Amino acid sequence: MTWLDLPSDTGFGLANLPYGIFSPARATAHDPSPGAATTRGPAHPGAPRTGVAIGDHVLDLAGLTGDPVHATGSLNAFMARGPESWASTRAMITAWLTDPAHRERVEPHLIPRSSVTLHLPIEVADYVDFYSSRDHAENLGRMFRPGSPPLTPNWKHLPIGYHGRSGTVRVSGTPVVRPLGQSRRPDEPPVFGPSRRLDIEAEVGFVVGMPSELGAPVAARDFPSHVFGVCLVNDWSARDLQAWEYVPLGPFLGKSFLTSVSPWVVPLTALAAARVAAPARDEPLLPYLDDRDDPWGLDLSLEVRLNGTVISRPPFAGMYWTPAQQLAHMTVNGASLRTGDLYASGTVSGPAPDTRGSLIELSWNSQEPLKLPDGSTRSFLEDGDEVTITATAPAADGSRLCFGEVTGRVVPAPPAE
Amino acid sequence: MTWLDLPSDTGFGLANLPYGIFSPARATAHDPSPGAATTRGPAHPGAPRTGVAIGDHVLDLAGLTGDPVHATGSLNAFMARGPESWASTRAMITAWLTDPAHRERVEPHLIPRSSVTLHLPIEVADYVDFYSSRDHAENLGRMFRPGSPPLTPNWKHLPIGYHGRSGTVRVSGTPVVRPLGQSRRPDEPPVFGPSRRLDIEAEVGFVVGMPSELGAPVAARDFPSHVFGVCLVNDWSARDLQAWEYVPLGPFLGKSFLTSVSPWVVPLTALAAARVAAPARDEPLLPYLDDRDDPWGLDLSLEVRLNGTVISRPPFAGMYWTPAQQLAHMTVNGASLRTGDLYASGTVSGPAPDTRGSLIELSWNSQEPLKLPDGSTRSFLEDGDEVTITATAPAADGSRLCFGEVTGRVVPAPPAE
Repeated sequence: MTWLDLPSDTGFGLANLPYGIFSPARATAHDPSPGAATTRGPAHPGAPRTGVAIGDHVLDLAGLTGDPVHATGSLNAFMARGPESWASTRAMITAWLTDPAHRERVEPHLIPRSSVTLHLPIEVADYVDFYSSRDHAENLGRMFRPGSPPLTPNWKHLPIGYHGRSGTVRVSGTPVVRPLGQSRRPDEPPVFGPSRRLDIEAEVGFVVGMPSELGAPVAARDFPSHVFGVCLVNDWSARDLQAWEYVPLGPFLGKSFLTSVSPWVVPLTALAAARVAAPARDEPLLPYLDDRDDPWGLDLSLEVRLNGTVISRPPFAGMYWTPAQQLAHMTVNGASLRTGDLYASGTVSGPAPDTRGSLIELSWNSQEPLKLPDGSTRSFLEDGDEVTITATAPAADGSRLCFGEVTGRVVPAPPAE
Repeated sequence: MTWLDLPSDTGFGLANLPYGIFSPARATAHDPSPGAATTRGPAHPGAPRTGVAIGDHVLDLAGLTGDPVHATGSLNAFMARGPESWASTRAMITAWLTDPAHRERVEPHLIPRSSVTLHLPIEVADYVDFYSSRDHAENLGRMFRPGSPPLTPNWKHLPIGYHGRSGTVRVSGTPVVRPLGQSRRPDEPPVFGPSRRLDIEAEVGFVVGMPSELGAPVAARDFPSHVFGVCLVNDWSARDLQAWEYVPLGPFLGKSFLTSVSPWVVPLTALAAARVAAPARDEPLLPYLDDRDDPWGLDLSLEVRLNGTVISRPPFAGMYWTPAQQLAHMTVNGASLRTGDLYASGTVSGPAPDTRGSLIELSWNSQEPLKLPDGSTRSFLEDGDEVTITATAPAADGSRLCFGEVTGRVVPAPPAE
C-alpha cells in the first residue's frame, strides 16, 4: 500500500492525510525560531510551512513541491485554490507515498512528527459557534429553566449560532489564562475577579476554503464546494461571566478569552466513509435546511480527558443540525464567506451522562462533581488542570482516522487591577 | 494658515485630516480598476492607496511620501506603527499643508475628492457591536417588554456587547441586499422570505491600531494608545429575523448580512476638543470601568437622512458607556486586540423622539410611521430607499470637523430558493 513503514494503529494513514502548519525545529508556539520574523520564505529552514501528517511523520509540502503556496505559514492560500486543487493535491500526495518510484525524492522531506512545532493552521477570518446538540441544549435548559420547556421555540427550526472572537482562536497547547470578569450571585451586586466556573466545550470545527459573494446564499448541497476540512475545537467558557452578561445579546467575554483548535485539518474528502444520516427531525424543515436527499451527519467519536483521565466520549453522529445545514443557514441572509472562516458545531453531548461535552453538564451544575483517580473532585477547572480532546472516525480503507488533539492547561488569572 | 484654498465651511480642514483608502480613477467599489488585481504596488497609478481628506481634495500619501506603508490598500500597516508614528505623520502632513515652502512638492499629489473612488479603509479583524445608549436600550425594552423594567439588570454594570461578522463590514455605498430569512408571528410556524422589517442603526465606530497580548487586559486609560481613529457605522438590521433567532445566544443573521462604514477614519487626536464628561452613572462602577478621572465622552452630532430628508439628529455625547470603557471591558477577560479591530457604540439615540437612531424607535415599532415629504410613510425600509448618516464634532481650531458619510441603498432580495 505504501513504501512507508506506518505504525499499524496509526490514525494518520493514507486515508487521512490532514494538513497543518509546522516548523521543523521544536520551539515555543509564539517564537517558532529566532529568525522567523526577519527571514521569511521557503528558503528559511525554520519558517512555518504546510505539512501533511502521515504515520509518525510530517511530509514537508513546501520542501517537496517548492510551491510557494505551501510556504505562507497558513493553509489559506492553498484552500483558496478550490476543490479541484484540493483533490489533485491529495491524489498527488497519495501517489508520492504509495508508488516506490517516488521514494527517493519524497523520503528526505519526511520529518519525525515528534520533532516539529505545530502552529495555528489557518488565518481565521470569521468564527461562528453553533449550538446544535439537542442533548446539550436540553441539559442546559433543564439546569437553568427548570419547569419550562428545555428548548427555546426556535431551536428545532434553525441552527442557533453566534459570532465569536476570531482573534483569540489559537492552536492547541496555548495556555488557558483564567479570565477576569464580572459575575453576580442572585440579589447581590456584581463582583470582579477570576472566573470560578471555568469550563470546556468539546466541539468540531469546519474550515471554509472557498469564499462566496455578498448577497448570494450558499445552498446546503454546496457544502463540499466551500468547506475544506474539519478540526477539533475547545470553546473554553467562563460560566459565571457568561451567566451575568449574556441577556439580551448573547455570550461575549464568557467565551472570547480563548478558543483552541487542533493543529491538523482533516480534509472533508477523508470523511466520506463517516457520513451518516442526520437524526430524525421533529419539526418540518424549511426548504433551505431540508437535507433528506443529501445528509451530512458525520460519525466522529470524541474523547475528553482531564489530567489524563477520560471523562467523556461525546458522539458527533447524533447532532441535530449538520455542518451543511449550518453553512446554508449562516449564508441564507446573503452573508458572504471568506477563506479561513471557521464555524464550530457547538458542544457535542450525547444522551448518556458520560457522553456530555462540558463540565457544567458532566457535574450537573456542580451537583454531581466528577471524581478523579487522585481522589480529588471537579465541577469546574482548577489552575493547573489540563484538558485534551481527541476524535476518530471511520476511514475509507476500513481503518479509523484520527484528528490529533486539542489540549490546553489552565494558568492562574493575572492580578486584578 | 494654509496655502491651500479651502472652502470656508469645509469639515475637512487642517484640524481634521482623516485617513482613507482611495483609487484615483472613479470606478465601481468592487473593481477599482481592471488591472488592480494583477499589477499591485505604488507603481500602478490606479491601485488603492492611503490618502488624507483636505478640503475638496485628497492628499495622496503614497505618491507624496513613496512610503510603501501607504500603498498597501488598507490603513492597517500604518496603524500598526503605533501612536508615535501617528503623531509624527500628522505633524508632517500639517507642515506640508501649511508651510508654503512645501507647496510645489505637495500640490501635484492633491486630487479632487469628487474624482476618486473610496474603499474600505481598514482590513477588519474582529468586529464588536456594543449597546451603550441608555435611551436606545430603554426604548427597545419599553416596546418589547412592556410592564417590566426597560433595562436588563446587567445594563448599568457593564457595557453589553457581542461579536458581529467582520467579513460583511463594507464601505459606504455598498448596496444593501434585503436579506432572506426566517421569521415568525406569535403562535404561527416560522416562514421564510425577504425581511419585512429592515432597519438601520446609526452608530459610531472605533478602529484599533495597536494590538495587545492574549491574557493581558488593556486599561481604560490606555484607550488613546490603542485606538487609532473613529468612523461612522450603519449596522443594518432585520428586526423580524432578529426577533425569532436571538434567544438565547444573541443577534446573528439579523445583523450579519451587512455593516456599512464611512470611508474616512478621523484620528482620535483630532477629537481632543470634542471630549466631554460621561453622563452621571446611577450605579457605582467596578474599578476597571471607573472613568471619573479620565472621561472619554465625545460630543459628536449625528444626522440621519432617509431619501434626502433628515429623520433624526442623534447626540453621541449622552452615551452611557464611552469607547474607553468599552475597550477596557472587551479586554478585561484577557482577550487580545489586533490591528484592524473595529468596535461600534451601538445605536445612538437621545432622549427626544427626533434623536433616535433606528427606524424601530422613530416609528415606535410601526405605531407611528414617519411621514416623508413625498407623502409616503415609513416604519421600515422599502426597496430603493437610501439612508445616509453624517456627523460633525467641535475641532481644536473652533471649526466643526466632519466624518464624511456612510450611505446605502436597499435593493430587492434575491429569489428565495
